[in-house]
Amino acid sequence: MNLKELAKELNLSISSVSRALRDSKEISVSTKKIVLAKAKELNYHANPFASNLRRQESKTIAVVIPEIANNFFSLAINGAESYAQKKDYHVLIYQTHDNLQQEISTLKHLQNGRVDGILISLSSQTANTDHLKDIKNKGIPIVFFDRVAENINAPKITTNDYESGFKATEHLIENGCKKIAFLSISNKLSIANKRMNGYLDAAKKHGIAPDYKQIINCDTDKEGNTILIKKLLQRPDRPDAILACVEELAVSSYVICQELKLNIPRDIKIISFSNLQTAAILNPSLTTITQPAYEIGREAASVLFQLMENKGTLQRCGDVVLNSELIIRNSTKMA
Amino acid sequence: MNLKELAKELNLSISSVSRALRDSKEISVSTKKIVLAKAKELNYHANPFASNLRRQESKTIAVVIPEIANNFFSLAINGAESYAQKKDYHVLIYQTHDNLQQEISTLKHLQNGRVDGILISLSSQTANTDHLKDIKNKGIPIVFFDRVAENINAPKITTNDYESGFKATEHLIENGCKKIAFLSISNKLSIANKRMNGYLDAAKKHGIAPDYKQIINCDTDKEGNTILIKKLLQRPDRPDAILACVEELAVSSYVICQELKLNIPRDIKIISFSNLQTAAILNPSLTTITQPAYEIGREAASVLFQLMENKGTLQRCGDVVLNSELIIRNSTKMA
Repeated sequence: MNLKELAKELNLSISSVSRALRDSKEISVSTKKIVLAKAKELNYHANPFASNLRRQESKTIAVVIPEIANNFFSLAINGAESYAQKKDYHVLIYQTHDNLQQEISTLKHLQNGRVDGILISLSSQTANTDHLKDIKNKGIPIVFFDRVAENINAPKITTNDYESGFKATEHLIENGCKKIAFLSISNKLSIANKRMNGYLDAAKKHGIAPDYKQIINCDTDKEGNTILIKKLLQRPDRPDAILACVEELAVSSYVICQELKLNIPRDIKIISFSNLQTAAILNPSLTTITQPAYEIGREAASVLFQLMENKGTLQRCGDVVLNSELIIRNSTKMA
Repeated sequence: MNLKELAKELNLSISSVSRALRDSKEISVSTKKIVLAKAKELNYHANPFASNLRRQESKTIAVVIPEIANNFFSLAINGAESYAQKKDYHVLIYQTHDNLQQEISTLKHLQNGRVDGILISLSSQTANTDHLKDIKNKGIPIVFFDRVAENINAPKITTNDYESGFKATEHLIENGCKKIAFLSISNKLSIANKRMNGYLDAAKKHGIAPDYKQIINCDTDKEGNTILIKKLLQRPDRPDAILACVEELAVSSYVICQELKLNIPRDIKIISFSNLQTAAILNPSLTTITQPAYEIGREAASVLFQLMENKGTLQRCGDVVLNSELIIRNSTKMA
């Protein structure tokens, strides 16, 4: 069943049927209803490539993220999907695996009308942002969430990373910790650096001098990061606490502590930025800074649709900063 | 920069440049090199919709799954991606959230050339398979993995579900359990029913009569399932063990045991089909039947590419059954 046959069945012109299917204002509501009913009855579907070419819209947005096996990102995607679904849009999910080349290749693939807009959270390797500028220059609406590119003029949805890093560190100090390690995911990402600055300032406030040997940049793969954390925990000047930038590093720290027979929280306290579903049933339960991941995704999608719907006219949407929550559990308990 | 301008820059015909970009055998290797270098230099990209229309291929496959926030599926996707990447294909990920309507809508969206092939693991609601037959009838290559449709003639990649259910139940019986509950995700999915049959047969072998009151069909949302499990654990004839069909149900069981002050493994033992990254650091560590999730995804992609590359000629690829592994930890320890 093609458009011509459908038009013949309806006894209407091809152009009228086509406009009715595109929900054109030139066609009456009653005609649209008749056309849609007949299209459904005869199982007619537009050829998406041909019709995209004509309409220049794909009814699709892309979400580009480092890793789906991360509860923050899977929740954020669910938030974005819930908004897109309301608008009758499909969501394509792309993983970069924290690899800059993969991110560049994905964004190339998304140029030229494959999607109407892009939500992105950067890979931990992303320092050069030329590929993001290309997307901007092509006029494709783009919104950053969580791992944002500070130097790109596009909306950014983040959480209060500096304050959260500060608060988490202060919680550890109040519970007796003096030598706190900070496990970062990248020295290139602004969110990691903001969390670190909060950590450094909280220590300073409490009279603890910054010790850069306690800041570990875990920006390799899982095995590489495990080696880095293991070395840290085997040092003579082993830290008495860990503040982990992402849940994966907390999980690795737990496994290593088990192996080295270090008791959490007695020998070492652990706190992590995390949306782990199992945080409360870990041994011991994990104190977390929990980001409103679902809301971030939903908000990012909402801003993206604003951009898409006002293409060309809206120059800039305001940035949004949401608040994370400190959830105290047993992994930071005082002895 | 369009194709015409690129051809002019190269002093070649449009058709030669187009064929060179499509890697046609009619064009010499040296000419292809020159064309590709110039295209890169001038940042030329083919319009994907126009070129897809011509070539009738999208260089894209779709993976349709119930939920990304599930370690089995995220690992399976990574396996499929690793294979697709080798073939220079992109992977689109779609979630159905275990909702049949969403699955139907996604498959409609994927008709008419949007992707070259589909990997799918069914929603727990999928009993009617007309939407899957539509895909088959359109000639779009499709491969099922894990949650398969038995009545559709397409390749299926699964694990030894019956044997795994049997082995898990036998492990519990050997550790003293007599009243084992089975938490299913669906009575419509063949994998859930195979696991259940293994459970029933193992009980029978050891002289335990089947007790259908201990089989709970957890096919609602997270809140609904929590209520079902809580009711089960508050019964006077409370089970002494739980065999969970998916990790989400084991996580909920842990949380409820914590709330009801039931000690695992003393009061109740728990075993689960699971690829949870935190299984070993839970309180207590969780005994799992672990599926080779990454390999399943990779194998499914490999079979899909066989179908795609032999479109029309290859009628049927063999089904593949991979083996799961029983990993014994503390949640099933004898008192």
